[in-house]
Amino acid sequence: MSLSTQPYKGARDFYPEDKRLQKYMFSTLRKVVESYGYQEYDAPILESFELYAAKTGDEIVNEQLYSFEDKGGRRVAIRPEMTPSVSRMVAARRQELSYPLRLYSIPNLWRYERPQRGRLREHWQLNVDLFGVDGVEGDAEIIQIADAILKGFGASPSMYKIRVNSRRAMHELLEAKGYTGAIVTKVIALFDRLGKPSFDKFLDENFASEDRGKLNDFITNVPGTAILETTAGKKVTELVSILANVGITVEPDITLNRGFEYYDDIVFEVFDTDPENNRSMFGGGRYNGLVGLFGVDPLPTVGFGMGDVTLQGFLEVHNLIPRLVPETDAIAILIGNVYSQAQPALRQLRKSGVNIALDTSGRKLDSQIRSAVKSGTRYALFIGEQELESNSFKLRDLEKGEEKQLSLDEIASTLSVPHRNN
Amino acid sequence: MSLSTQPYKGARDFYPEDKRLQKYMFSTLRKVVESYGYQEYDAPILESFELYAAKTGDEIVNEQLYSFEDKGGRRVAIRPEMTPSVSRMVAARRQELSYPLRLYSIPNLWRYERPQRGRLREHWQLNVDLFGVDGVEGDAEIIQIADAILKGFGASPSMYKIRVNSRRAMHELLEAKGYTGAIVTKVIALFDRLGKPSFDKFLDENFASEDRGKLNDFITNVPGTAILETTAGKKVTELVSILANVGITVEPDITLNRGFEYYDDIVFEVFDTDPENNRSMFGGGRYNGLVGLFGVDPLPTVGFGMGDVTLQGFLEVHNLIPRLVPETDAIAILIGNVYSQAQPALRQLRKSGVNIALDTSGRKLDSQIRSAVKSGTRYALFIGEQELESNSFKLRDLEKGEEKQLSLDEIASTLSVPHRNN
Repeated sequence: MSLSTQPYKGARDFYPEDKRLQKYMFSTLRKVVESYGYQEYDAPILESFELYAAKTGDEIVNEQLYSFEDKGGRRVAIRPEMTPSVSRMVAARRQELSYPLRLYSIPNLWRYERPQRGRLREHWQLNVDLFGVDGVEGDAEIIQIADAILKGFGASPSMYKIRVNSRRAMHELLEAKGYTGAIVTKVIALFDRLGKPSFDKFLDENFASEDRGKLNDFITNVPGTAILETTAGKKVTELVSILANVGITVEPDITLNRGFEYYDDIVFEVFDTDPENNRSMFGGGRYNGLVGLFGVDPLPTVGFGMGDVTLQGFLEVHNLIPRLVPETDAIAILIGNVYSQAQPALRQLRKSGVNIALDTSGRKLDSQIRSAVKSGTRYALFIGEQELESNSFKLRDLEKGEEKQLSLDEIASTLSVPHRNN
Repeated sequence: MSLSTQPYKGARDFYPEDKRLQKYMFSTLRKVVESYGYQEYDAPILESFELYAAKTGDEIVNEQLYSFEDKGGRRVAIRPEMTPSVSRMVAARRQELSYPLRLYSIPNLWRYERPQRGRLREHWQLNVDLFGVDGVEGDAEIIQIADAILKGFGASPSMYKIRVNSRRAMHELLEAKGYTGAIVTKVIALFDRLGKPSFDKFLDENFASEDRGKLNDFITNVPGTAILETTAGKKVTELVSILANVGITVEPDITLNRGFEYYDDIVFEVFDTDPENNRSMFGGGRYNGLVGLFGVDPLPTVGFGMGDVTLQGFLEVHNLIPRLVPETDAIAILIGNVYSQAQPALRQLRKSGVNIALDTSGRKLDSQIRSAVKSGTRYALFIGEQELESNSFKLRDLEKGEEKQLSLDEIASTLSVPHRNN
């Protein structure tokens, strides 16, 4: 029986044309976040199970975490998110690091779930985190970067909406209405379902029948701006104004509630406004309590994560993916038995920055040309004895069907212009 | 109890200074292999267990593979090597792809083993594979690239040695001596141990006492060039000559035997010549039989893998790591309450390609300057009301302790010179 050629369910193979798009997306992400002074880090894809048990959230840990025992009896997990890892790393060097500390990474993450549009079992996710800034300028910077990334891909402000909320303000608001203790988390979860089909079911299953009417009234009638009236909401007002000053509109939205338990103050989400893709794309918030869980002094932190599948969906829906060119500029085709003699010419071209493959298949010329066309490479360069003697080579543009007779130097300057994606 | 800040055993955290070195190594690798016309691909880090059961080798599959059952009852493995994945991907599009096909990747790989110098549980490994070239020019290209990579890092030919062998020639040679059938694999494994402490033990445990003397004599006395006398060895002679023509010396070595079962003709290894690090660094070979295991037409294939831990060890021992600079060019320090007014200046600098962080901690000036120095960033830029009005800013070189008074345009041209590592 032969082996299957399928990748693992819910995971993707990246052939060169797919990888090219990923490289374009990642290099754009890197360019924007580095321009704000963020530096790249990484951590192992395997972590101890305990790292997620603490704060990642029950649904993920119980149902979606890839975890197993290693051969030494240690319980390990494939990371479902990066925030616990970066918090661990910062805690490990809490004293040596200098603050404000700006870190980013583009890790590969895994969750066991039913693959569906925009959600796979694995994805890559940009993580941007700012450590050591307690003021709302920190939250503003993180949202500014999220906005700059979308603009960096050519998006216009009408293509997306940014909404903010404050967990602390929510708690204040609910307390004023008499909701305290264990019920608060449930009421917040109910807010999150407003306007969704699951609202009624959640209401029925989680609250006593005598409370339902009052809750329903409160939640459906409270204005999105109600949080601004609270003490914690003053920070939201300040945030809205700071961002308005740099040309970014954000809307307070009381129904916005990020999934992770560790968020403890302002949270935000970015929504796609396209009718075909009208959904939350990504978000983040403040999690001042996480680094302290590792037994070191707490550290104010704010950050966000942006997945590659969602980002690609956004770029596709809004026609923002540019034409991407292969890494290979040209394929050299030999005329006659000049394999050895052609080597110095190839070396010279590569040294001048040309990415050139050599067809060493030994097939007929026609068949080599057909392969070159099929490969999607833009140019074919013909090298024979006469060409090497006269330093005059035929360079064929396989896309336009044009040919030019050029010296090696001329070929180098034609092909080595900076046109690649990364 | 607080959470541990340690990464999983045998795996590495990459803080920005570590990631910087990795980025330098990876971008050098990419540059060299792309210059030979190779294009980047990727595959999921989780694969089906069966993919490795076939040909990866018993020791790895039984003792070193990270494998487990997923929540759907599928047996999966974290990839210990990339060759099975790329073979799977090529087989899946056997007809659509154009040949010769040149692919590379830098995947993260895992093996459960006792962490030791130069060997961790996880590493990153450049994989370079050429599909569709049956002739020895294919083997030559792969070795040429391995050589070009080391030279690309600034290595001189005296720092390393390249050795080649031929599995087919070995079989011929052994057959001529009367070794056929199941014993061949064992004799080859014994050759691999020549000069190593494990030789005698392996001889005792795997061969009848009456055979041992003859085998010992044969193995210790056969010259490294013996393979050249065989029919399959003609290809080795041709390879040696092709590589000599491009200035690369390779030595035939009958004791060289790569671990993977799928190699079926010429194999090679690159050794560090430094007395402190005298070891095999990496290698590869021809594996014409692998793609066909997926139920498609067989495809001649030759490739190699090079791990990041070994590469870094080589660069360190030979002093080949250049000074690497942080992604962040400067830290902006505000004088007075000019947070809003400073935004357009920061935007302009970022737009001109300057990577600049803003200290939003609100601490005293002294303390901000100390943090900037500690962070390793080269420049500090001071922004106050007066500076913004006159477009004349103080830029302090934190390394040299020098200061200059510059306009925004002058700062941009001072800082945005191409000096980063990737």
